[in-house]
Parts: sequence; structure tokens; C-alpha cells
Amino acid sequence: MLQTAGSNRTYRYMSLANELENKISAGQYKVGEKLPSLRELHAQTGLSITTINQAYIELENRGLIMPREKSGFYVKPLLNDLLPLPSSHKRFGAPRKVSINSLVESIHASIHDKDILPFGAALPGTELLPLKQLNQSAKTVMGKYFKGDGLNYGPPDGAPELKRQIATRTIGYGHHIEEDDIIITNGCMDAIQLCLRAISSPGDVIITESPTFTCYLQLIEDMGLLALELPTSPSAGIDLVSLENSLKKHKVAGCILNHSFQNPLGFRMSEDSKMRLLEILTRHKVPVIEDDIYGDLYFGNSRPASLASCNEKATVLYCSSFSKSLAPDLRVGWMLPGKFKEKIKRLKFNSSIACPKLNQLIIADFLQNGHYERHLRKYRNAMKNQVSNTARAIARYFPEDTKLTAPDGGYVLWLELNKKIDSIELYSMAREENIFIIPGGICTSTGKYKNCIRISCGNPWNDRLEHGIRQLGKIIKKMVAR
Amino acid sequence: MLQTAGSNRTYRYMSLANELENKISAGQYKVGEKLPSLRELHAQTGLSITTINQAYIELENRGLIMPREKSGFYVKPLLNDLLPLPSSHKRFGAPRKVSINSLVESIHASIHDKDILPFGAALPGTELLPLKQLNQSAKTVMGKYFKGDGLNYGPPDGAPELKRQIATRTIGYGHHIEEDDIIITNGCMDAIQLCLRAISSPGDVIITESPTFTCYLQLIEDMGLLALELPTSPSAGIDLVSLENSLKKHKVAGCILNHSFQNPLGFRMSEDSKMRLLEILTRHKVPVIEDDIYGDLYFGNSRPASLASCNEKATVLYCSSFSKSLAPDLRVGWMLPGKFKEKIKRLKFNSSIACPKLNQLIIADFLQNGHYERHLRKYRNAMKNQVSNTARAIARYFPEDTKLTAPDGGYVLWLELNKKIDSIELYSMAREENIFIIPGGICTSTGKYKNCIRISCGNPWNDRLEHGIRQLGKIIKKMVAR
Repeated sequence: MLQTAGSNRTYRYMSLANELENKISAGQYKVGEKLPSLRELHAQTGLSITTINQAYIELENRGLIMPREKSGFYVKPLLNDLLPLPSSHKRFGAPRKVSINSLVESIHASIHDKDILPFGAALPGTELLPLKQLNQSAKTVMGKYFKGDGLNYGPPDGAPELKRQIATRTIGYGHHIEEDDIIITNGCMDAIQLCLRAISSPGDVIITESPTFTCYLQLIEDMGLLALELPTSPSAGIDLVSLENSLKKHKVAGCILNHSFQNPLGFRMSEDSKMRLLEILTRHKVPVIEDDIYGDLYFGNSRPASLASCNEKATVLYCSSFSKSLAPDLRVGWMLPGKFKEKIKRLKFNSSIACPKLNQLIIADFLQNGHYERHLRKYRNAMKNQVSNTARAIARYFPEDTKLTAPDGGYVLWLELNKKIDSIELYSMAREENIFIIPGGICTSTGKYKNCIRISCGNPWNDRLEHGIRQLGKIIKKMVAR
Repeated sequence: MLQTAGSNRTYRYMSLANELENKISAGQYKVGEKLPSLRELHAQTGLSITTINQAYIELENRGLIMPREKSGFYVKPLLNDLLPLPSSHKRFGAPRKVSINSLVESIHASIHDKDILPFGAALPGTELLPLKQLNQSAKTVMGKYFKGDGLNYGPPDGAPELKRQIATRTIGYGHHIEEDDIIITNGCMDAIQLCLRAISSPGDVIITESPTFTCYLQLIEDMGLLALELPTSPSAGIDLVSLENSLKKHKVAGCILNHSFQNPLGFRMSEDSKMRLLEILTRHKVPVIEDDIYGDLYFGNSRPASLASCNEKATVLYCSSFSKSLAPDLRVGWMLPGKFKEKIKRLKFNSSIACPKLNQLIIADFLQNGHYERHLRKYRNAMKNQVSNTARAIARYFPEDTKLTAPDGGYVLWLELNKKIDSIELYSMAREENIFIIPGGICTSTGKYKNCIRISCGNPWNDRLEHGIRQLGKIIKKMVAR
């Protein structure tokens, strides 16, 4: 490559900056950690102190590191301060019948199309999944499964082997869970629909966060229930004053809350807020369906405590699954139905008899071999870096007035764009360039969030994804300039 | 063994009779076929003509063969005329809220207990399933599944590979089925609950046969619907006059019918009756959910035509699965939602996203290799013989006033016992001797069938099962004699 002296120096500091960025992204330098001093790097690389200093300034400009006086450069918290947080809406009005236009089908049609950039569905890139070990577990399980009584129905509430493993690994959840407390389901949505059927009847009001997961709203509609969306802050979660007021005003059958790395806002509700939340719900005798599907995917040091563990008097129906963290297709979810156990066992039996044991046994074997914790450690780090890389690319390529969430876990970002943007139109224009995003409007029944979008960061970051974010930025800028 | 000349002769003809009975049971002599002549058997066995004749008379007494004048002995239709058919109730009254006591859980707890005689759940003995070939299909599928994109969600309406195979093998169903007409479900009950959700709202009336499958009734109750059970004959199926009258009298949202080898009565509705049934339903614009789960398990020469194929104007939602015929645990069902396709796709997506592809691909591979038809041929024959052996044992060991169905397919028998018998009490007494039966009361919401029981014949006949039927007969006789 022919380069002038000048461009050569440019090349050197950029090259070093890129290398350091990669190490930060890969988690080799962790948040808050001190980077090597200029001297150390000079000794290590042979590059001049000036070049190294230039590289650090470049990284500072990219929002990755920050200087501390007389102390050197430190890795910045990955997401905060990149862009301001989206605003949290305040006025929502009465409970309403849900009616969301059906982009859902096209979302799923896009999943298997390799030409489409996967910012749509909240799914992990399969290269992040422990395919070899799962395959090994499958082989182990198969040996027994296709012999003797293996192909016969398993127990309606789930295979004991899996329930045992789940009971064992929920030690960090904050309360004691026994095998018998657990019911296995066909993924997390199956658990949630069973909970809704157990706690409500058509016409009842169900409280959700806002914005929320499309499928909750569609399920509420399908079941003839009414959704009452409450103001939800991208940093603190559902607004407790609004909650208290709504419970005084309406007869509410229950809530569905997703307080751990909520989809789509990504917040982690503080322990203090959870206690207050449960105090309010308990006082009003309102049960809560806790969707903890992202609970294991924390970016910090520990998983959030489950609501079920925070207040013994609260009526909590806990739901989770292995779909977001281990094996989407196996469709293995689980729940702690609490005092609704008998009712839910019956509802489950009458609507699908039992879940396939084969799928449960594969996961049970995988867990038993201790693979899951190892996998999660790598996986969480990968997701954190993917979210961080996507967020930084957004900060780089999107208009300056873009607002962006700073998730504490999970793998989606929520963006509030210029008011001029109609996200359905943006969705269509992006779709034409093979970029898939979720328009904010499908995350509510209120008609809000028309200028918002959700971006999934489930796939390992690469140039193609970066290019996609740049393209999206261009489309948005063009739309604003019209 | 010490035997006198007399007992020796007894032994000889009984031994021959038993040997011939075994051959009939194993299907080596088929229904309607002529048995070897006295002379032929004499030449073959060296036994005296008298002994052989005595053996034939013994088989005639056992209800297995019949003489035709100047022509010899023929294998009798296996089930007819063993015992009279149970009566079909006439007065049912208004639609009602379902409330069935929950024996269901204990039924399922019994499935995996090897000490319990399996006359309860309608499940095949796993030795009847093609375990080796399924294992081979699983191995083939796994090779791809745990690579690349395999673990990602499949399409919400099912894996194309399986839908293609189903579309291919439904040529005998009576109408053209395309891949795109099919939705894959988590077993047949999942399909049925989706159908009920698509066609009805809480408070609506759903017509069923009576007696019927417990889970239908419980599902109807769970969904806040009302069940209207109609008189159903063990030979002809649902009473069409009652149907017409009910449709005039009540606003009915739909029917669930199981006209092919109905559970529990085992009848096959005639083609003529099906046409009249559909004419009535079409005239009243009432949709029918057709549960065809036993449709492939015919004892005659061909499968019954599906309702969906009988009348183009009728609104039919067809449901089936591989659970009764191939792989209960894999939980792979399928349906033809007809004009409710979009609604059901949405309901399905919002309640469980997608069915596991792994399970679908195993069955698709098995079907693609042409194993299914071969398996079904053997399997149908096995079931026919098991049903026949059980029925004959019942005729032998139960009181003479017992009435018994003569199923044309499937693998359950329905018995009407002496009026003195409370089948719940019988259930408990049998349970103490490790014999599991289904008390008739759980097959209705009307309080009828208290002296009826259902006996499943899913397992290969053996001395233990015969002993169980004899024990049951003894318990019943004791109860009647009290």
C-alpha cells in the first residue's frame, strides 16, 4: 500500500485506536478499567508517544474512554451518555382494546432470510449458541429416548430431570425454588398466556409497561382483555404513581411486567422500586405476571432478584425460558405459578397435554453438565459488546437529535427519532434496502411512539451491520430534511 | 405333567384351539377367511378329526369363528356380536357449564408406572412404535440442526419440510391439500384449542358427541363456553335429528366432532351420515372442528374421508396429530384451518411463537423415507388384534349383562355395566389392584354414564393384561352381587 508519511502516521494511530476499540468491545479491557499508560504502550508497540496519545484522543472522541487527571485513560461505561434517553410519555388515558397492524408476520418471515440485516426480531445470532455442547447433549439424550418408554408422554407439568436442574440453578434468584414449584411450558409466551387465562376473564383490564412487547398486546386483544399501558421510564421502569392511581380508578385483573432488561426499553428496575411496586400491588390485591426472559442477560455483576423473591405476600406468576439465551427453537419455557399451580396445570393439560420431553431432556443434560453458566458468561459479554457497538454506531451515524436507551442487559435498543419521522415509513424504506427494524408503533396500543424504533443487537457486530446502521442514519437524515 | 387319557384329549383340543386363536389374533387368518378343513388339519397335525372338530367348536364358543353349511369354518368379524352395544342416551337437556372431577391428573401419573395395568390413557405401547427408524431420522436431522441457523425459530405456521410431507401423504383424505393449507401445532389438543378460540367467545354454546373426550369438555369449561352434548349412538355417531333440533333451539358457535373411530365409542360415521351432517351444519352456518386423530387407525380397508373433503361449502377446521400413531412425546399435531387460517396463525403466534422445528424435522424425515405407511400397516393390525383380544376377554370374564362397543378403528372400548355399578367406585377398587380404567362419568358433563367405563387397548396383549381383565370382571361381579 502506497502511503505518504502523513497518511502513514494517520494510519498508525487509527490502526492502534481500532485495535484498542476491538479489545474494549471484546471485553478484554472492562468498563472502569485503566488502559495501559503511554509509556507502557510505547515499550510494547514501539510506536511514538505522540501516535499513542493521538490514538487515545481518537478513542475519547469515539466515546469509548475518558481521561482522569494525572491518572491516565479509563474505559467508559459502554452506553451511558452516548445520546440522551428517549422521553417517557405521561398521558395514556383509559384501558383500551388493542389493535395493532400486523407487521408481526413479516418480522418472522425475515428471520431466515440471510440477505436481510437482522435488527428486527430479538433473537441471538446462532453462532453465539453452544451448538457443539447442545449437540452432544442431544446425542446423550437420544440414546435413551428412542428406547423403552421414552417416546411416551412426559408428565403434563414437565420432565423431572429438567425441573430439578432449573431448581438447582435458581439459587441466585433470591428465594428457594423447588422442583415441584415449576411448570415447564412451550416457551415463555405459552407461560404468559396460561397466566393470563388463570388470572383474568374477557373484559378485564391488564396493566402493562409502555412501550411493551407486541405479543403481550396482541395476546391481550386475542383474549378479549383490555390493555392499560402505564408511563414507563427508560431508566426507572413503570411509573409507580400512575400505577397507584390506575388501581384506584380501575378494577385491574393483573399486570404483565418485564422489569429485568425490559423489551424494548432495556431498563433494570431498582430493588427499591420493585419493593414499592409489590407493596402497591399487594395492597390492591392485584397479581403480577413477571416475564423474566432476559433476567440472565445482565451487563452488570449480578442478576436482578425476581419479584417472586421480593415480597412473600405478593401474588407473582413468574415466567421465563431458554429461548433468548440458549436454544430458541427448542421452545422450552418454565414458570413458577405460585398459588395458581393447580389451575395452570389443568389449563396446560387441556390445551396441549404435555411439552415434548425430548427438548426438555436436551436442555436438562446441558444444564447438568454445567455448560450453561460458562455459556452465559461468554454470551452476556458478547451481547453487551454487540449492544455497545450498535449504540456507538447509532451515535456516530444518526442525526444529533436522536435519543437512545442505555440498556443494563438484554439485547435491544429503543430509539426516539425526530418528530418528523414516521417509523412505519422508515420501516418500509429500510426494508427496501434489506434492513429490518421494528417500528415503535407496534409496541403500544395507544398510537404513541410513531417516531420510535426498536433495534435488535442479537448478532455479532461486523462491517455489514455497521454499514446497515449507517444506511439507516442516511435514510433518517433524508426523511428529516424533506 | 401327569394327565389321564381324558384330560389328555381335553388338553389336545384346547391346545389346538389356543394355537388357532393365537393365529387369528396375530392376523394370520384374517376376518372372513376360511380356516383349514378338518382333513387338511388332520394331515398337517396328525390329530384325530374328532379332536380337531372339538377345537373348532371351542373356537366357535369363544365367538371367534363361525361354521358355514357344507363349506367349513370362517373367521368371524372380530368384534361384532361379542356383547350387545351400549345404549345411546336420548334426553340431554340444555347446554351446561362443564364440571368434571379431576381424575385426569391421576390418569397421567399412572402412565409411567410399570406396575399399573394400562387400560387408562389412550396411548400405544412404545414397543409398537418404530423406534429404530425414528432414531435414525433423529440422527439425520441432528446433523444439520445443530449447525448454522438450525436452532433459530422456525416459521410460526410450521416447518416447510413437514408441511410438504403431510400434503403429500394426505392424498387419500378425499381432497387436495397443499403445503400452505397446513398449520403445525403442539399436538392435536393445541389445534383444537386454537380452533375453539377462533370460532367462539365465552358464553357460546359448543356441540359435542356424548360420551366424548374429557379434554374437550375441560377445555370448553376453561374457556368459559357451554357444552351441549348430543345423543350419540355407538354404531352410527351423533344423532342428526337431535342436532337439527338443537340448532333450531340454541345459538351454537360450533361443534367438535370425532367421527372417525370416536373416543370413547369407536364408531365410524357412515359417508351418508357425514353428508347429512354437513348439510345441516352448512344450512345453519355452524362451523365444525373435526378431530381426526384416530383417522389413520382403521380396521377396515380404507381411511374415512375427512369432513373437510365431503362438502366444499361447509366450514370445517380439521385437526390431527402424530401422537396416537407414531410419536406421542414429540407433540407434533397439524391442522387445516380453512378460512380461519389468518386468525389461527395469529392466535398461535401470540400464544407460543412457533413449534419446535427439531421435532417436526424428525417426523418429516421419517415420512420422507416412506416409513410411515409401512409402520401404519403393522400398527393398525396390532391395534385391531389388541382391541379384539381385550373385547374377547371382556366377553369371557365380565358379567353377561355387560354391553360393549365394536370399534371400527382406534384403540378404546366403551362398556356399559350393570346399573348397580358406580364406575368411580369401580375405578378406585381396580386402582387398588393396580388396574387403571377410565370411569365413564368423566366423558360427559351431564352426570350420565355412571355405570360405564372406557378401556384402552394400546398395549400388546399378554397374560398380564388378560389377568387384569379377569380381575376387573371379578370385582364387577362382586359389586353386582352386593
